Amino acid sequence: MSGAAQFVALPSPMPLLRGGELREAVIAYETWGTLSPARDNAILIVTGMSPSAHAASNPKDPTPGWWEPMIGRDRSFDTERYFIICVNSLGSCKGSTGPASPHPDDGLPYRLRFPSISIEDVADGAAAVARALGIERLLAVVGPSMGGMTAQAMALRHPPLVPNLIIMSCAARSSAFAIALRSLQRQIVRADPGFANGNYDHAADVSSGMGLARKLGVATYRSPLEWRERFGRERLSERDADPFASEFQIESYLDAHARRWSGGFDPLSYLYLSRAMDWFDLADYGGSVEAGCRRMAVEKALVIGVSTDILFPVEQQEEIAEALTEAGAEVDYQALPSIQGHDAFLVDIPRFAPVISRFLDRL
Amino acid sequence: MSGAAQFVALPSPMPLLRGGELREAVIAYETWGTLSPARDNAILIVTGMSPSAHAASNPKDPTPGWWEPMIGRDRSFDTERYFIICVNSLGSCKGSTGPASPHPDDGLPYRLRFPSISIEDVADGAAAVARALGIERLLAVVGPSMGGMTAQAMALRHPPLVPNLIIMSCAARSSAFAIALRSLQRQIVRADPGFANGNYDHAADVSSGMGLARKLGVATYRSPLEWRERFGRERLSERDADPFASEFQIESYLDAHARRWSGGFDPLSYLYLSRAMDWFDLADYGGSVEAGCRRMAVEKALVIGVSTDILFPVEQQEEIAEALTEAGAEVDYQALPSIQGHDAFLVDIPRFAPVISRFLDRL
Repeated sequence: MSGAAQFVALPSPMPLLRGGELREAVIAYETWGTLSPARDNAILIVTGMSPSAHAASNPKDPTPGWWEPMIGRDRSFDTERYFIICVNSLGSCKGSTGPASPHPDDGLPYRLRFPSISIEDVADGAAAVARALGIERLLAVVGPSMGGMTAQAMALRHPPLVPNLIIMSCAARSSAFAIALRSLQRQIVRADPGFANGNYDHAADVSSGMGLARKLGVATYRSPLEWRERFGRERLSERDADPFASEFQIESYLDAHARRWSGGFDPLSYLYLSRAMDWFDLADYGGSVEAGCRRMAVEKALVIGVSTDILFPVEQQEEIAEALTEAGAEVDYQALPSIQGHDAFLVDIPRFAPVISRFLDRL
Repeated sequence: MSGAAQFVALPSPMPLLRGGELREAVIAYETWGTLSPARDNAILIVTGMSPSAHAASNPKDPTPGWWEPMIGRDRSFDTERYFIICVNSLGSCKGSTGPASPHPDDGLPYRLRFPSISIEDVADGAAAVARALGIERLLAVVGPSMGGMTAQAMALRHPPLVPNLIIMSCAARSSAFAIALRSLQRQIVRADPGFANGNYDHAADVSSGMGLARKLGVATYRSPLEWRERFGRERLSERDADPFASEFQIESYLDAHARRWSGGFDPLSYLYLSRAMDWFDLADYGGSVEAGCRRMAVEKALVIGVSTDILFPVEQQEEIAEALTEAGAEVDYQALPSIQGHDAFLVDIPRFAPVISRFLDRL
């Protein structure tokens, strides 16, 4: 968690969509720029599954954030014009209350006692941050990946708060393929002996299961095309005699990703938020994605997809764009030809930034 | 292993491509139909990574084989006209010598003492079967998936034996993406405590790692499109209270696949053959795929790809088809619009069978 994080207390108890409740729960967030006296320049960012609220550096925490090139003076989220808020998801382990947080009854970590979290609950947590800052109408809500689902759920459950929507590389509901991959990732984590049915010690090595799950994530977050261009069949200069040790550069790239990530994210937060993505279905609200969109009050929407995304293929962003249009919103739909797949919003800034800047200029 | 299996002894010692040798090694195979007096009607099938030589039922083993609808009277591989041979790969656990076979020195299983196996060695094993049957020129060699690589290696190393080639859903060399997925599958198997660094007991439960690796396999052997049509977001009628238990039909489908497979295939055979697929590269022979094809003596080739294959995308079959054409072969290239992805050759018989029959009629 970043030293720049601030906290909003949620109502206690806070009832959850799928039953159960949370007491004394908090949401961590960070801000950049200044809220205008009319409170009409706030842009709220909800994140993918694992990032913290530290989307960009700031005086209290000068380390680069996960969306650093997008936030700051003269960047798409221009801190001279806008008040930017980034919210850490409910259920995460980066400051907001999650399975690793102490249970109010006994002070011990919730672990599997944590109630099932839904994307709708994550959205309610983000809405609570906006309201705590005295904002009743955001200029826009921005969500990439899982955040795109959270943004939809915010627009659905808090219509006056979300007049404008910027969502990317997400879906109105997960496909069978995405559910299959996430299900497998969760099983890989749970199969790790160090996971100990969720009763792992923080010092215990759960890095193997988390590392392998991360590798599967990375395999689907990028595109085969990008890897062909970056790695092809290049070998490592030094090899082990073990025929199963990493020998190709792509293997070593995945090793590095696994090492960086495992230990940095709580396995149970991963399981809970991963499952929440499976469950979310905009069509649960009225029988179709379009009916769900009609319950929102979105005026303008920017929907961005990437042609090489295999996890949330562009057909899924197209589906949302069409449904929002049918529901009366003015929609700008952009299918970008990045080769970086699902993760393009993090790395292909030259393609994403102008599209987002142009949309914000029109608000 | 099928009761219909026959065996050919390989030269002892048999030197291997990557160093090392095997002594007293055997190759299991099955046959259907009758070899003509001129020995000119033999079609040899090399398999994907896991199938046995039991490609179809026969009097000695009436259980259905893995390619049952393709082999028999009036089927593509018409047993009234052709003598069909199916070979179990060297390194497998379905009758041919592999890591689970006894080491000639001590009678104990080889395990990790087994030397590194290459696709070229698998090809040499298959060629030995043809020669043992007195065949110096096959009518055609047929290879789906890994078998497509083996077929290429046979044509490369035994040109007179392979005048005609039928390969499908394969590549001249694996992409970084395919290597990444296989690398991850191997790590999942090795991370299973039951694997015990390869010293697992046959009775030990290695089904968890093998089951999870299989799920990842199945996830890439089929297509997101097929799953959307078959499963969508359908739920199981009965659910566990555990939020991480299978709840969507796609999860239960993967569970069933994992259960059927794990226990049925030796984990070390899986590791060795999986790595062999990473290594194979036709461009190692002369610097390019085309140069590799020029070392063959292929006259006619049928190359089939499937538009929804994410493991071996059609661009890879197109690459082989073009290289074979440049090398002087008469090539029939077919990109089929099956929705079953990589596994379509096993299930979309209505699309595959006519294309193969037509090609064979022209030989």
